[in-house]
Amino acid sequence: MLVRSASEVKQDTIEQEGVVNVKIRWLISKPEGAPNFAMREFEIEPAGHTPFHSHDWEHEVYVLSGQGVVSGKEGDIPIKAGMSVFVAPGEEHNFKNTGKDTLKFICMVPHQ
Amino acid sequence: MLVRSASEVKQDTIEQEGVVNVKIRWLISKPEGAPNFAMREFEIEPAGHTPFHSHDWEHEVYVLSGQGVVSGKEGDIPIKAGMSVFVAPGEEHNFKNTGKDTLKFICMVPHQ
Repeated sequence: MLVRSASEVKQDTIEQEGVVNVKIRWLISKPEGAPNFAMREFEIEPAGHTPFHSHDWEHEVYVLSGQGVVSGKEGDIPIKAGMSVFVAPGEEHNFKNTGKDTLKFICMVPHQ
Repeated sequence: MLVRSASEVKQDTIEQEGVVNVKIRWLISKPEGAPNFAMREFEIEPAGHTPFHSHDWEHEVYVLSGQGVVSGKEGDIPIKAGMSVFVAPGEEHNFKNTGKDTLKFICMVPHQ
């Protein structure tokens, strides 16, 4: 069993085209022995965003704090603490912080 | 894309031996199109607990609010908001609320 605070996990800044002010922590993944999928924590600063893209795998997201939108073919959908987001494989999407505080969520993905 | 508040999802009381005061919401699972794993939200009332058991699949947990312990061969490990818990396949475990407020966490499991 592995029990730890997110703050104990190294946080990395994502340096990638289309990404602005996004940090990630890999909370549970292959190095911790996870056999199927990974749990990551994202922090997006105000006006920051992830890239608008699609990929072959799904996202399962739970919003922890802050305010933002998830964008896709449906337009911009507001998100805040206590909301869950399912992005199916192949769906274009991105996450943007539209608030004044850090937008924080966890995002699960299958191992690749 | 599916975006919704946890409060929009039907909450069920778990009626099972060894379970006391535990409610569950299946936030994202097969009916929502999830191909690999499910996200559930648990609420455990003060002094409530899940069963002490093991199974062939893993848990990936993120604690949202409240206070409790996760118990295993290592003893009782305190948990609170912002902590992640990885329970490997085959590990005996349970979650108990040791605080005065609802213990709330999300728990991911692979499809069976």
